[in-house]
Amino acid sequence: MTQFSNVTVIKQANVYDGGKVTSRVIQFADGSRKTLGIMLPGEYSFSTAAAELMEILAGELEVQLPGSELWLAIKGGESFEVPANASFNLKVTTLVDYCCSYYD
Amino acid sequence: MTQFSNVTVIKQANVYDGGKVTSRVIQFADGSRKTLGIMLPGEYSFSTAAAELMEILAGELEVQLPGSELWLAIKGGESFEVPANASFNLKVTTLVDYCCSYYD
Repeated sequence: MTQFSNVTVIKQANVYDGGKVTSRVIQFADGSRKTLGIMLPGEYSFSTAAAELMEILAGELEVQLPGSELWLAIKGGESFEVPANASFNLKVTTLVDYCCSYYD
Repeated sequence: MTQFSNVTVIKQANVYDGGKVTSRVIQFADGSRKTLGIMLPGEYSFSTAAAELMEILAGELEVQLPGSELWLAIKGGESFEVPANASFNLKVTTLVDYCCSYYD
């Protein structure tokens, strides 16, 4: 799926880490939501409320999933899931274009 | 208008200047299009094909419009227009969140 049709886009961006991570919210007719975002190179820790599917559209990063010591290499075309109410760490090594789906 | 409803969003971002400028395309039912984007601090030169309305949602920049020597200060809540087939220069001094409308 290269585009999302019949959606609502929130105009204002979400800005994190001084602009190194930015995203916009997409709302679907069924009430579900995703964010489309950009991460610049850097190290980040994120916490989830809802469970998430992080789909990497382009770029490269390593992820340390909740409760794991392991760093997994992930690149464009790959994805990973994070459970609800958890935190995970990222080492982003190139610009990363991503789509995050939330499972409320 | 804080959101766009019943639109199509192209999933993959457009990336310029090594990621200092990124945007995504929003398509409307009437065939028109806008981009929602982020510019990090820096100096940029852009060329238009279609005429554009650049609406600054947040942040601060200066713009030198086509054929002008003058630099105009623009901040969140303000906007400027650029004619078709022209080039313009920007000095972006903070992270800028923008919405660009194209008049094809």
